[in-house]
Amino acid sequence: MIRAAVVGYGNLGKAAETALTSDNGFKYVGAFTSRNAKTVNSISGAPIYDERELTGFLDKIDVLLLCGGSARDLPERAAGYLKLFNTVDCFDTHSKIARYRENMQRVAEKYNKVCIYSAGWDPGLFSVYRLLFDCAIKNGKTYTFWGKGVSQGHSNAIKTVKGVKYASVYTVPDEAAKKAVCGGQTPCLTKSEMHSRECFVVKENGADENIIKAEIKGLKDYFSDCDVKIYFISEEEFLINHATLYHGGEVIRTGTTAGGSAVTLKSSLKAQSNAELTAAIAVACARAVYALKERNKAGAFNLLDIPLKFLSDKSEKELINLL
Amino acid sequence: MIRAAVVGYGNLGKAAETALTSDNGFKYVGAFTSRNAKTVNSISGAPIYDERELTGFLDKIDVLLLCGGSARDLPERAAGYLKLFNTVDCFDTHSKIARYRENMQRVAEKYNKVCIYSAGWDPGLFSVYRLLFDCAIKNGKTYTFWGKGVSQGHSNAIKTVKGVKYASVYTVPDEAAKKAVCGGQTPCLTKSEMHSRECFVVKENGADENIIKAEIKGLKDYFSDCDVKIYFISEEEFLINHATLYHGGEVIRTGTTAGGSAVTLKSSLKAQSNAELTAAIAVACARAVYALKERNKAGAFNLLDIPLKFLSDKSEKELINLL
Repeated sequence: MIRAAVVGYGNLGKAAETALTSDNGFKYVGAFTSRNAKTVNSISGAPIYDERELTGFLDKIDVLLLCGGSARDLPERAAGYLKLFNTVDCFDTHSKIARYRENMQRVAEKYNKVCIYSAGWDPGLFSVYRLLFDCAIKNGKTYTFWGKGVSQGHSNAIKTVKGVKYASVYTVPDEAAKKAVCGGQTPCLTKSEMHSRECFVVKENGADENIIKAEIKGLKDYFSDCDVKIYFISEEEFLINHATLYHGGEVIRTGTTAGGSAVTLKSSLKAQSNAELTAAIAVACARAVYALKERNKAGAFNLLDIPLKFLSDKSEKELINLL
Repeated sequence: MIRAAVVGYGNLGKAAETALTSDNGFKYVGAFTSRNAKTVNSISGAPIYDERELTGFLDKIDVLLLCGGSARDLPERAAGYLKLFNTVDCFDTHSKIARYRENMQRVAEKYNKVCIYSAGWDPGLFSVYRLLFDCAIKNGKTYTFWGKGVSQGHSNAIKTVKGVKYASVYTVPDEAAKKAVCGGQTPCLTKSEMHSRECFVVKENGADENIIKAEIKGLKDYFSDCDVKIYFISEEEFLINHATLYHGGEVIRTGTTAGGSAVTLKSSLKAQSNAELTAAIAVACARAVYALKERNKAGAFNLLDIPLKFLSDKSEKELINLL
């Protein structure tokens, strides 16, 4: 049994706890939080610890799942955890992965630890698809469409705007662009041209819709990049229609094989719970971290760096049957 | 540059030659055939050798692509090549992979060689999808649909029936089954229930349609497993509509994540030329064989056993950008 714990007890941490406690391959140690542990309720009944207690668990945790956010938590703190534990994280700021990896690699080597970073569905599953597609179709073009689904990063950003009570932001793929790509066309498209965003906002009593709209559009790291629609709705409607965190996406590559024949490869997902799917993949990566450690490896790995069978609890014979 | 050659100069061997000669990472040595080499025309202008000349190339070929069939060529001869060369093959008889692997593993270890077996799209790409899907959705069910596309094995089998001049056999996925699965249902379906076969036959002058039909349906290794429709057409229609070897397929897994939320993962392909797509993947595997050899590995590997980045000619930095 692999002894695992989570640090960070938000949506992802809770989903990871649920996945770990329902997996016979793991012994779940508990969750560590930076909030006041006494005020946090465990969803599984497992212990909740103050994060500062982690140093007391050095020989009690084989893999620590880092369930903090990519905006600040992981860049600031992941390397610190890696000094003490083998880790898995779901770092997903694509533009900053190279620098993040470099730092994690240095620490992992120095402290003889294994980490798998950027575990999840994108980066993660979709990264594997993009690599395979690229190898199978040398002459082609890959498109990644996100959505339709809830962008938690954007939703959180809007909630910081004054006068906003609740908000959900959806990433919506451009159906015309997707249709063109699926039809074998290879248009030049930016991320912005491939997606739009729809914001559903419940405002505080008396707040001014126009001021809120202007402020949302002014959040330049979030809403300057593509077409944004903002809808003001009632609290009742919000709670009925916008309470779940579903997401989805699709990777498509079209092109020609060396002899000039057309070929299309596609992979997609639809998940009612983004956090649960991400957690499931992170847990599979925790299994792989353990397998790497058993083989005396040290370093920072992503899903392209490791034999994928390490993600699985299947026997060699069962794996052959999957072929 | 990786020095590569092919043995077996049918559809797959020719497609592999085209892929290798158009890839800057390879130096193409030539094709080896068991037919009379002097009577075989090269499609790229590269040399065609008699297979018995292979022993003269021991230090001139880094990876040998075995492009023979899975019914007899590979089981009978792959291990012999592996004694002399690092190899890639596309062995695709799912039910016999375990035994095939065992034999190749023994030889690879004894002769200090690397082989990647069962490279292609199924087994191959689809194997990777099935593994990833299985890890991401522990509680679910995976379905593999083949087609619509030409089954070369079945087409060749029909051509052995007396009175058949030309024939193409299509594997056709059952659209109702696929729709049910995509809709989140998890019916119990056998391969036969998920597929049917359509045979387009040009008969010799004067041959009896009913006798041919009966003989086709009597080919028990091929047509006893699912619904078969047989159409007799003119030679002209055959050459216009049934000359290409396109294929496709789809892997779908639906189920729930640990918290009980629904999730669906799908991957599909459509290829105008089955042989060219298979060859492209085999060539990527040849690159991986070389990478494994550079790291002093020996053994028989499949796509689940190796870091997938070895398939790629991209730099570490470019790989991070793919994430």
